[in-house]
Amino acid sequence: MWAKMVSDLHLSRDPALGLRAGLEQSLRAAVRSGQLRPGTRLPSSRVLAGDLGVARNTVADVYTQLVAEGYLIGARGSGTRVAAYADRSNAVRAETTTSPGAATARFDLRPGRPDLSSFPQAAWLRALRTVLVADVAPALGYGDPRGPLLARTALAGYLARVRGVLADPQLVVLCAGYRQAVALLARACSAEGRRTVAVESPGLPEVPEMFRRAGLAAVGLPVDDEGAQIGRLAATGADTIALTPAHQFPTGVPLSPARRAALVDWAHRADGIVLEDDYDGEFRYDRQPIGAVQGLAPGHVVYAGSASKTLAPGLRLGWLVVPPRLLEPIVEEKRLADRHSSTLDHLALAHLISSGDYDRHIRRMRASYRRRRDELGAALTPVRPRLGASGFRAGLHVLVPLASPATETEVLSHLERHEIITNGLSRYAPGDQRAGLVVGYATPPQHLWRPALAAFANALHDGS
Amino acid sequence: MWAKMVSDLHLSRDPALGLRAGLEQSLRAAVRSGQLRPGTRLPSSRVLAGDLGVARNTVADVYTQLVAEGYLIGARGSGTRVAAYADRSNAVRAETTTSPGAATARFDLRPGRPDLSSFPQAAWLRALRTVLVADVAPALGYGDPRGPLLARTALAGYLARVRGVLADPQLVVLCAGYRQAVALLARACSAEGRRTVAVESPGLPEVPEMFRRAGLAAVGLPVDDEGAQIGRLAATGADTIALTPAHQFPTGVPLSPARRAALVDWAHRADGIVLEDDYDGEFRYDRQPIGAVQGLAPGHVVYAGSASKTLAPGLRLGWLVVPPRLLEPIVEEKRLADRHSSTLDHLALAHLISSGDYDRHIRRMRASYRRRRDELGAALTPVRPRLGASGFRAGLHVLVPLASPATETEVLSHLERHEIITNGLSRYAPGDQRAGLVVGYATPPQHLWRPALAAFANALHDGS
Repeated sequence: MWAKMVSDLHLSRDPALGLRAGLEQSLRAAVRSGQLRPGTRLPSSRVLAGDLGVARNTVADVYTQLVAEGYLIGARGSGTRVAAYADRSNAVRAETTTSPGAATARFDLRPGRPDLSSFPQAAWLRALRTVLVADVAPALGYGDPRGPLLARTALAGYLARVRGVLADPQLVVLCAGYRQAVALLARACSAEGRRTVAVESPGLPEVPEMFRRAGLAAVGLPVDDEGAQIGRLAATGADTIALTPAHQFPTGVPLSPARRAALVDWAHRADGIVLEDDYDGEFRYDRQPIGAVQGLAPGHVVYAGSASKTLAPGLRLGWLVVPPRLLEPIVEEKRLADRHSSTLDHLALAHLISSGDYDRHIRRMRASYRRRRDELGAALTPVRPRLGASGFRAGLHVLVPLASPATETEVLSHLERHEIITNGLSRYAPGDQRAGLVVGYATPPQHLWRPALAAFANALHDGS
Repeated sequence: MWAKMVSDLHLSRDPALGLRAGLEQSLRAAVRSGQLRPGTRLPSSRVLAGDLGVARNTVADVYTQLVAEGYLIGARGSGTRVAAYADRSNAVRAETTTSPGAATARFDLRPGRPDLSSFPQAAWLRALRTVLVADVAPALGYGDPRGPLLARTALAGYLARVRGVLADPQLVVLCAGYRQAVALLARACSAEGRRTVAVESPGLPEVPEMFRRAGLAAVGLPVDDEGAQIGRLAATGADTIALTPAHQFPTGVPLSPARRAALVDWAHRADGIVLEDDYDGEFRYDRQPIGAVQGLAPGHVVYAGSASKTLAPGLRLGWLVVPPRLLEPIVEEKRLADRHSSTLDHLALAHLISSGDYDRHIRRMRASYRRRRDELGAALTPVRPRLGASGFRAGLHVLVPLASPATETEVLSHLERHEIITNGLSRYAPGDQRAGLVVGYATPPQHLWRPALAAFANALHDGS
């Protein structure tokens, strides 16, 4: 057995490793695999050194190391043995947690994703370099849980200018995308004693899920062509509401002026907290974007945004603008969640904003998405004149209603056969009878947009 | 009043904004500040356009916009009025949540921070560029909650090679620094029904805090010169333990071989979960680093590490290697916490590893820190021969024991008068009578190290 092990050691030794490291690694592996069983006595360092043709000190060093690490036991007088409790239950086979919704289709028309082929690589790298050259310590050290003041100030200015947000840099909390923004707020609401959150139906399923995790109940608020039905809010008993006023996800309608007023009214009367998800507020085509509700009621509205649609979701750049009374609990949640987000990346965003590159990129993308939207509208018109697709005025997706969930399933399979992946409306409103396609026209890279559109139009034509 | 408002509009208009945007912003501000009170009727667009000398359409557009946003109400027949519920409770004064422990002293000798002046800027930017050029979509899109497989594979190889971690890339979860690693694990433990975590005393106070947040009780396990007293573990009733085996924080001692064996034994008997915080495992000077405990019991040990000491904490690059049974719950927590961490940054780290730049940087820093450690040791020797400072063999800090917490307070103030900031031991063991200085010698930038050391030695000499 020992001879076998020694030869195995030779066989399995990684040639990239030195003699000593190789011996060490081989012994660890032999102990782990059970090839060397607990209690087995190892040859003396002199004997093994002779067998292997290495210096005795090398083997002695390796034994010492592996004793220190717990693989071996070195008892004075009784030589070196394999430790008793090396774990052999390590059938390390992971469940294959595959990436959810990884697109295998050729044409990706799912919503919520921007055109990544247009990411401003050069500007982003330039911004990072500028930040690193300017002063490396604040960009790389530990810092304020809210993120660096410089980045909060740049962002506050941007949000005030472009989205009508009343943003004091002290009240800005930089975080890891919209997802973390919701997680932090949900926990802070729970700590404040809030019990029930109203969410849009249809809407993003992760939002109620995260509030439930934090201990709140979630109730659905139906969405019609004026947005969420705020009139029903009081009856739900909710003390918190999460919604997408600028461009309801996924129906694409903006919250009507009367509903905005009713929302603000409710927040004051019920001392409610409003989470305003401004996920694609920059993208409005036929007129100026509608400003954030936050500006109307900054004492009650938590404004949440991200660079996931303007730049790229993979950067995980997000932010909250919070009412003063929620600042302390949200900062505390952020501190305990991950201390703070990447200082370097948020400073680079700040630089992108102050250099004008951010606005230039958004303008360019808005023009590009507007063209896509127009082409999508034109492609849909002749095929299904009565489709009543909605959400064309803003954002990066449209909703194409379908007769029933059964039709939806059918159409999605049909599209899949044409190598097209998109999302069904029913995933955003389980139990509802509403059905449709939520078509994201921003997702395909530039060179695939026209082919994707042609394939989509053909498939719908086939199926109609 | 109206005239005043109009003139104010002119006065306050931001010259950087266009005519229309400026008018809009001024009106919003006037509504918010209460200068325009609820119900106030605005002049017709024709009249205001005349007053301001702008086109009527401009004013009409602005009114339409502000009605859509909820600042104004446009009722047919009764003209345009200021909306009733614009929030005036917005005395937006934030509490000044200053960055905790922001150093104002000239010489920063706090532990837990690497020398940021040596950050490999060029290599980092090169890695980012390579990743962006290679294929932008996987680097920037939404992905697996664990992070991109490419990055997990590179890291798993590195951890196996350098830290003796048995790391299947499927079992690696990339996250935002050690802080988030603990937060994710604490919640997963809570979901698994675990109730009590043992933590090292002294130790990082945030660790028990985060487990408590997740609903577990935390009990302290005393640390002596062999590390945490594992022999006392069973009596605490803990089902989980968090510790720093390679280099105990803050005392600097490694967990002895006997204690390692006892720890693994306990984990098997009690079906315990061990959180191994390998926060500075790469830095050991007088002999090879001690491998991770995880390799001995991968079915029970959660290995946590980060690039906060090897590169920079501001990047927030961290990772967990988890036992198979904890993978699902931890991935779920990660998904709900922030979906995943920055894909681009983690891919850049992978590139840094596979190009050899990461190893080269660590080797360079190890040599630099070893020199600093030697110089610190030499500086301490003549001043206080009986200091009995510990933790010199590894890591980035040493512990200089002091007689009592009162002495500690005194010495810290004395150092502060010499423009030196460092941490007292008592902050890591509240209620304990142990006292000392936890001196981080990696923190000063290269050009300040010698002056910092001289100032520190002088101050100790003065005070002795």
